[in-house]
Amino acid sequence: MAELFIALIHHPVLDRRGKIVTSAITSLDIHDLARSARTYEVRAMYVVHPVKELREFACSVRDRWLEGYGRQFDALRQEALQRVAVVSGLDDAIASIRGICGAPPLLVHTSARTQEGISYPALRKELDAEGPPFLILFGTGFGLAQSVAERADRILAPILGPGDYNHLSVRAAASIILDRLRGR
Amino acid sequence: MAELFIALIHHPVLDRRGKIVTSAITSLDIHDLARSARTYEVRAMYVVHPVKELREFACSVRDRWLEGYGRQFDALRQEALQRVAVVSGLDDAIASIRGICGAPPLLVHTSARTQEGISYPALRKELDAEGPPFLILFGTGFGLAQSVAERADRILAPILGPGDYNHLSVRAAASIILDRLRGR
Repeated sequence: MAELFIALIHHPVLDRRGKIVTSAITSLDIHDLARSARTYEVRAMYVVHPVKELREFACSVRDRWLEGYGRQFDALRQEALQRVAVVSGLDDAIASIRGICGAPPLLVHTSARTQEGISYPALRKELDAEGPPFLILFGTGFGLAQSVAERADRILAPILGPGDYNHLSVRAAASIILDRLRGR
Repeated sequence: MAELFIALIHHPVLDRRGKIVTSAITSLDIHDLARSARTYEVRAMYVVHPVKELREFACSVRDRWLEGYGRQFDALRQEALQRVAVVSGLDDAIASIRGICGAPPLLVHTSARTQEGISYPALRKELDAEGPPFLILFGTGFGLAQSVAERADRILAPILGPGDYNHLSVRAAASIILDRLRGR
């Protein structure tokens, strides 16, 4: 099984008008994605933010459950949040993975607006095989900027329900994608 | 296709020690579940809470996007939140569905702790057929109380990843369940 990593990107992302912005960190994103990461055996979840103060906030959300009272209070939460790493840019996440695995990851772009893309069964098959690590990129706000898509090795198909509406929260979308790729 | 409904239950649910409690409403639950409900063509999402002040809070979270500025600001969010109904107990949700569909729903219990249960493909097949409406019950806190399970017509199998850890947020779990039952 390939090593799997995820990154939650706050810059460069789009706002509702398609402008490139930096989004704020939502504490519940860290908790939800860490728990989903732990459930689907994702090796680490990178919270990517260029602003130091917001990285410090993300670290405080995580460390609340890794130290002292929080650690004793909820061992399951601790197990999830241990996988959270906070970095300033995508290249730092890639460097971290290179350090862990000895090879850079293949980057997987996700977007609700992708017209065509690799199917879930096809990517699942790649993940099941022995091979390089994979890093799945999730965008906050209204999704990842085009410059991120241009760096990607795989563009994943969007999540679709029975109809055309697919305006899911990043918490829901990331969980569904992990379930489609690694669920039993 | 059977009509599908979901309910987010705040009482009776369990706390971390297994005691029956009433949990508080989380505004992001309402947004995330409404967006997932809209994506997977769930007819209505019931926020179930016995305390009037918290029901009023839930209504204010919803109505912020259905009226005035919020309505103009984000039409997609409005489309999702339109499906949110706020009720004081499970029986009110059942009565509402009876009013909409002319028949009471079959109740589907969900829990991370279920030992055995109906599989996702089996329940999906039932949902694809013509038949009575279904209401899927999601518990906040540490999950639904046993008294809710006893009323259920179907007990759904838990969500599992490659390992045994399945401590997902209710936002993630509900989205994954809808995707497994209705995803394309």
